[in-house]
Amino acid sequence: MLGREMRVAVLGTGGVGQTLAAMVASLGHEVMMGTRDVRAALARTEAGWGAKVLSEWHAEHPEVKLGTFAEAAGHGEVVFNATAGLASVEALEAAGAQNLDGKILIDVANPLDFSAGMPPTLFVCNTDSLGEQIQRAFPGTKVVKTLNTVNSGVMVDPSQVAGGDHHIFVSGNDPDAKAEVTGILREWFGWKNVLDLGDITSARGPEMLLALWLRLSMSLQTPQATIKVVT
Amino acid sequence: MLGREMRVAVLGTGGVGQTLAAMVASLGHEVMMGTRDVRAALARTEAGWGAKVLSEWHAEHPEVKLGTFAEAAGHGEVVFNATAGLASVEALEAAGAQNLDGKILIDVANPLDFSAGMPPTLFVCNTDSLGEQIQRAFPGTKVVKTLNTVNSGVMVDPSQVAGGDHHIFVSGNDPDAKAEVTGILREWFGWKNVLDLGDITSARGPEMLLALWLRLSMSLQTPQATIKVVT
Repeated sequence: MLGREMRVAVLGTGGVGQTLAAMVASLGHEVMMGTRDVRAALARTEAGWGAKVLSEWHAEHPEVKLGTFAEAAGHGEVVFNATAGLASVEALEAAGAQNLDGKILIDVANPLDFSAGMPPTLFVCNTDSLGEQIQRAFPGTKVVKTLNTVNSGVMVDPSQVAGGDHHIFVSGNDPDAKAEVTGILREWFGWKNVLDLGDITSARGPEMLLALWLRLSMSLQTPQATIKVVT
Repeated sequence: MLGREMRVAVLGTGGVGQTLAAMVASLGHEVMMGTRDVRAALARTEAGWGAKVLSEWHAEHPEVKLGTFAEAAGHGEVVFNATAGLASVEALEAAGAQNLDGKILIDVANPLDFSAGMPPTLFVCNTDSLGEQIQRAFPGTKVVKTLNTVNSGVMVDPSQVAGGDHHIFVSGNDPDAKAEVTGILREWFGWKNVLDLGDITSARGPEMLLALWLRLSMSLQTPQATIKVVT
């Protein structure tokens, strides 16, 4: 699948979705970004954290198509879930199981719950994870959890931090899907160190890392802090 | 306090307690290890994971005194909590608030719950932590969470991994206590990189890191995997 132009879906139009879509499109792939309601999304005049106002962003990236969740998922041979964790399962239901069936879903979302203030807590952890919730809801889809442990700039350009000498993780039930995603991480984004943690239940580890990551961001005053595994 | 011989308590006689007690005693400090029932502990013929049979270990380390939790806590100017997370609050209650009052408690325990099999889950996380539970139960004690993210060998000799080029964290409400513990980590054990995460609520991060650490141990087949923070 790698080494050729692909059709890629990015679900979510926030900062993470914008960063992923722009980078993947810049590599020559055919990217469609999915959102609930394209007209409403383009009419927004405010942007979320780390994002640009969508209409302005889209004017700068006309090569990225915009569609509904279902249109984007139908378009993509591979699908990124870059929606907010709290909205992910609903967004994927709107995308439709038939549009996700048999495909690789690269889940980069975090189960963050901001309802009790900062720093956020997780709405699922410890005995379950968002990655597992999504895999259970879409058993015909090959969910691979990855990239959720770094900020969006680092996701697509790990060399921004320590020359890229740090780690990213993959978790998923399908070894071939993990190998494919590992290839995407290496070839598209330049990740040198990709660590396979195991099946989708191992997504609990990287998701729960957010509790430490949030404190590191506060202590070190940077959203780019990340970790290198040493043995 | 540093730079002179100290009286140190190590609560818990398992692998972590043995490793900490042996190292601290080897530095010339007066160490007492605390357990529920000294006679029963010495009569045991089995050892927990990573531990030696206590009577055999003690024969090799006669310089370490053995006492009840209360005797050890009363002896120590600084107290390590190296009991199993599930037993920690009970052990500290047996140690007695009056023996812990005003002292620094270095909490290295993890809230691991093995009841559902391997890998273990956490019995507290996300909106609370073991460090916070202990601090609430002993408001007169200065709880500093640290060292829980590495295995016991690395705790007392970080140079075992990557020449010591990795991080350990401190969390606690009392800045002076954190500075003192940071000194202990540097001067006694040789930690080069000690990162202050914030108040005791920040202990959630390092405790929740266990979910990732356990998977790394399984994937990389070593209990010595740990992390370096890069920015």
